[in-house]
Amino acid sequence: MTTAANQQQVDQLRELGAATVYEAQGAKGALDSGMKPIDPTVRLAGPAFTVDCRPADNLMLHHAVQKARPGDVLVVDAKGFLEAGPWGDVLTIQAMKVGIAGLVINGCVRDANLIIALGFPVFCRGLSIKGTAKNQPGKVNVPITIGDVLIHPGDIVVGDRDGLAVVAQEEVASVIAASLAREEKEAKQREAIAQGAFTSELLGLTETLRRLGLT
Amino acid sequence: MTTAANQQQVDQLRELGAATVYEAQGAKGALDSGMKPIDPTVRLAGPAFTVDCRPADNLMLHHAVQKARPGDVLVVDAKGFLEAGPWGDVLTIQAMKVGIAGLVINGCVRDANLIIALGFPVFCRGLSIKGTAKNQPGKVNVPITIGDVLIHPGDIVVGDRDGLAVVAQEEVASVIAASLAREEKEAKQREAIAQGAFTSELLGLTETLRRLGLT
Amino acid sequence: MTTAANQQQVDQLRELGAATVYEAQGAKGALDSGMKPIDPTVRLAGPAFTVDCRPADNLMLHHAVQKARPGDVLVVDAKGFLEAGPWGDVLTIQAMKVGIAGLVINGCVRDANLIIALGFPVFCRGLSIKGTAKNQPGKVNVPITIGDVLIHPGDIVVGDRDGLAVVAQEEVASVIAASLAREEKEAKQREAIAQGAFTSELLGLTETLRRLGLT
Amino acid sequence: MTTAANQQQVDQLRELGAATVYEAQGAKGALDSGMKPIDPTVRLAGPAFTVDCRPADNLMLHHAVQKARPGDVLVVDAKGFLEAGPWGDVLTIQAMKVGIAGLVINGCVRDANLIIALGFPVFCRGLSIKGTAKNQPGKVNVPITIGDVLIHPGDIVVGDRDGLAVVAQEEVASVIAASLAREEKEAKQREAIAQGAFTSELLGLTETLRRLGLT
Amino acid sequence: MTTAANQQQVDQLRELGAATVYEAQGAKGALDSGMKPIDPTVRLAGPAFTVDCRPADNLMLHHAVQKARPGDVLVVDAKGFLEAGPWGDVLTIQAMKVGIAGLVINGCVRDANLIIALGFPVFCRGLSIKGTAKNQPGKVNVPITIGDVLIHPGDIVVGDRDGLAVVAQEEVASVIAASLAREEKEAKQREAIAQGAFTSELLGLTETLRRLGLT
Amino acid sequence: MTTAANQQQVDQLRELGAATVYEAQGAKGALDSGMKPIDPTVRLAGPAFTVDCRPADNLMLHHAVQKARPGDVLVVDAKGFLEAGPWGDVLTIQAMKVGIAGLVINGCVRDANLIIALGFPVFCRGLSIKGTAKNQPGKVNVPITIGDVLIHPGDIVVGDRDGLAVVAQEEVASVIAASLAREEKEAKQREAIAQGAFTSELLGLTETLRRLGLT
Repeated sequence: MTTAANQQQVDQLRELGAATVYEAQGAKGALDSGMKPIDPTVRLAGPAFTVDCRPADNLMLHHAVQKARPGDVLVVDAKGFLEAGPWGDVLTIQAMKVGIAGLVINGCVRDANLIIALGFPVFCRGLSIKGTAKNQPGKVNVPITIGDVLIHPGDIVVGDRDGLAVVAQEEVASVIAASLAREEKEAKQREAIAQGAFTSELLGLTETLRRLGLT
Repeated sequence: MTTAANQQQVDQLRELGAATVYEAQGAKGALDSGMKPIDPTVRLAGPAFTVDCRPADNLMLHHAVQKARPGDVLVVDAKGFLEAGPWGDVLTIQAMKVGIAGLVINGCVRDANLIIALGFPVFCRGLSIKGTAKNQPGKVNVPITIGDVLIHPGDIVVGDRDGLAVVAQEEVASVIAASLAREEKEAKQREAIAQGAFTSELLGLTETLRRLGLT
Repeated sequence: MTTAANQQQVDQLRELGAATVYEAQGAKGALDSGMKPIDPTVRLAGPAFTVDCRPADNLMLHHAVQKARPGDVLVVDAKGFLEAGPWGDVLTIQAMKVGIAGLVINGCVRDANLIIALGFPVFCRGLSIKGTAKNQPGKVNVPITIGDVLIHPGDIVVGDRDGLAVVAQEEVASVIAASLAREEKEAKQREAIAQGAFTSELLGLTETLRRLGLT
Repeated sequence: MTTAANQQQVDQLRELGAATVYEAQGAKGALDSGMKPIDPTVRLAGPAFTVDCRPADNLMLHHAVQKARPGDVLVVDAKGFLEAGPWGDVLTIQAMKVGIAGLVINGCVRDANLIIALGFPVFCRGLSIKGTAKNQPGKVNVPITIGDVLIHPGDIVVGDRDGLAVVAQEEVASVIAASLAREEKEAKQREAIAQGAFTSELLGLTETLRRLGLT
Repeated sequence: MTTAANQQQVDQLRELGAATVYEAQGAKGALDSGMKPIDPTVRLAGPAFTVDCRPADNLMLHHAVQKARPGDVLVVDAKGFLEAGPWGDVLTIQAMKVGIAGLVINGCVRDANLIIALGFPVFCRGLSIKGTAKNQPGKVNVPITIGDVLIHPGDIVVGDRDGLAVVAQEEVASVIAASLAREEKEAKQREAIAQGAFTSELLGLTETLRRLGLT
Repeated sequence: MTTAANQQQVDQLRELGAATVYEAQGAKGALDSGMKPIDPTVRLAGPAFTVDCRPADNLMLHHAVQKARPGDVLVVDAKGFLEAGPWGDVLTIQAMKVGIAGLVINGCVRDANLIIALGFPVFCRGLSIKGTAKNQPGKVNVPITIGDVLIHPGDIVVGDRDGLAVVAQEEVASVIAASLAREEKEAKQREAIAQGAFTSELLGLTETLRRLGLT
């Protein structure tokens, strides 16, 4: 049975960061490099409340902020359209009131100055002031795909300056363990480097380099 | 008869910001999402002094800085070419000497460190150090089109981190009024949200959501 | 005979900056506008230690950090692929241990927060957490081409917020001289502008403008 | 008073082609290079029946085909969104029944095989089978902007393999005259070239080349 | 229990085409508009033999052509890299010898003249002659994601000039039924249009248009 | 001493094609995948007459057609700008009169219908009817770089549907020999495939696949 990640696990994943989590779970779950935080200093983690909507229409976002629970990350497939900003200041304030942890949107947002000032983490493809209608149907809490990554409701989204990684609910515990092991290993590598070792030795690449005639 | 916007109006528009102005005037006049400030913290407003020039040649920019008046925003269609920076430090110093309020260029600029240090607002498509010639003819103070927005000389350009909106001269007063009304309405929405209301109610979306089977 | 640039020359080039150096050497050697520093405040200069490798594989980078000398800039052609980050924290620490001056990579990197915190200058096309293999052969210290610029090992790479310029080893002295002359000329132009002159006069454009009927 | 172009004029413009018309009217009115015919052998001309709609929703197209008159070209701003095909086989059959001359859409279409087989001229940004909703309001017969060209209802759209040019209604007669003059001049140039002349002489470039030291 | 699609079903899907199949199964399963046939006249259908490989390395393709069965469509995630052509003439001949039905690759190919002459259906992002290595591991017959569509081994891939749609194995029968029903409905619509009906009536849009004030 | 390629060698290279030549000379000299023939059926080969010019200005092209010799291929760096077509019908007729073998331009062209009808091979980045000025200086017969490939005057350019490869003058003989050897080897591979062999065996990949656990 799948159990939701608890707050401590979410905090750990946020601290570990997207790159470490991605590698630790076997180099999977990374969104594409076009998805970026509007404030590069933020860090985000939380279970995905997914939204499948049409480009340039934010009816479903108004629906989603009413349905999401505290700690959720809204993960919205707005179809990658760059010339509309379906999320802005009012929705940000609504989301923060609810306790939503942040937004990941395959599209653009606006009111970036206010969003940054409020400290609400937003990951998107850019900024657009162009408006949206409020007519189009959509779906919440269904699997969606952004940047070639399938995201299920409840998957934990982890984001920072580098980008975003998604962890399946049932793998949270094992991914944290693997991430911590990876961090420990890297800490030892750093120490070894400080003492004069080279990464080619530490990572066992000497044989490969020799085979390629590179030593 | 069209009267030029006065300084107080320009200041108001700058303060209101691009997204509010765009919405208040009926969701029109927004440049595309590829036009960005090189310093995201700047805010810009002023009447457009338009320049229609060829890519990778800045002769017309040297002409324009001599013709523009204090407070003007140079709005330059350099045809979206990314591999040349027809604007740099010398033109910035010239423009500031004249009292030009800022630059909006459909193309790239260079010397960004100095421009930012001087506090001169520049909106563009990127940075390029590649040089330009000084041979090509062009036009000033003619209607130009950037990012699918037709801009007439004297139109007020409003820019911030979110992007750029353009207000027709003859609509300045009404757009300011509509923007202030919009801000007031949003202030009330925020207050209502703080007290537990949801945006779907505040924006009258309940009926639409019900029709779509979403409540 | 070509002599390597000395440290004073490298320092001068870094101080002069990419745009000035590019112009001073005859408007050549500028990489394309898609190559940007991940921390826009850094400045970089140093002789290129070139790496020709395949996309999404960093075996050659582990080889290169072992072969490069203090002060070198790693200049890596990773073929412009955006969906992999072949450089991260461990390689950064390794490079800093060696005394490598910075990284220019035709591709993406990850662990940007740490790289910025450590102050290691990195110029690239974006950020990606996606992993790389360690299998593919490649070459070091061969001529490579990035953004239509041919770069030889030992060429001096100069980078800042504006982008990157490359100076041939044998031209370093003359390019510095020309850059200083250019700076002096521009200083005089700024002074003249402060006293009321216009760039069209200072740059001798009056005749061209007259011929085009623009005065 | 503006008079609509007559059929003979439309036929002449179609025959003259986009590049000639664009040049003859003073190098204006060309849509961007991303707008292409799905069948490169087609030629199109006719007065624009404009449609301003939202991306991924074709309600307004069903409205437009009912309002347009025989000979009209539907010119649709679907906001450049590539991941939806709001036009397909049924709308094509409807349009041909009405006598609509063709479609220009800032977006994608589908059912290209059938459209080509039926010989209905379509210019667009690509092909997408992704579906559209039928909910969103829009406008017909208002000025729209595609690829930085402002298009008024009734403007004559001219398209072929090279792309698209737009001629203002009131300039049709003069543009045809200028185009014919241009064709005549080019015919003479071809003849002169056949007899050994060079384009630099025929176009009066010798003096410019001499000034640049190029002869 | 899931049964593989039989040949008759595959033939039906190929005949129905990507757009119809996509719509009939509820507007899902369409790859993005950047995936195109190199010969726009081909039609393709068959069960996916999936390959997950690294960019610019075709070792896994040589493995896959040995493992796939007659009628399979190789569906390859080469990570969207445009500057390598991991598939060419020799692999085409090998694939045809095996009886493989076609190739869908998230990347480029080469030897397009020969591939077209041989009539082997290939869908890709472009053409590149740049070579690939044969070193990198990968996986076959695992779920992969291209253009935001999750593809399982055995899913039926349907492609034509418009693009590509993917049908889940267990839905083949129902999707064919829905597609045929859709074709029948569209045939009636065409007939009605021929007799003077309008699509707005046939699709029941009159009420929506009236509500928007558009009749 | 470098000798120019003779006509027989040029004919051989054209027949061999870009992909074979690229591989035979050690996987180098391939232009990027964005450079395509406007008529995919053409084949091109000939020594490069290089032109370095500015975007949207064709003065140098008029100069070049007067200087080039029969059999030359004009190879023009127009800086990749897509919104101008500096080459059209008149220059095509001029070039054919001179006996120029074809055009490769880092930019766009127009009058594609006529160019195709005349059978003049053109490789470019797209089609644009937008006009060019005739003011800007440039250089002919200097090394230029397109798509990260350095091209010297006299290098042999080879192009077909797949794209373009460039062969250094001094390597023409050896590259032809290597290409013919490669063709012979591939012919044997095809024969072996016809008799049941697999490419993994023919290319010696069995050991690598075994090491990766893939057999």
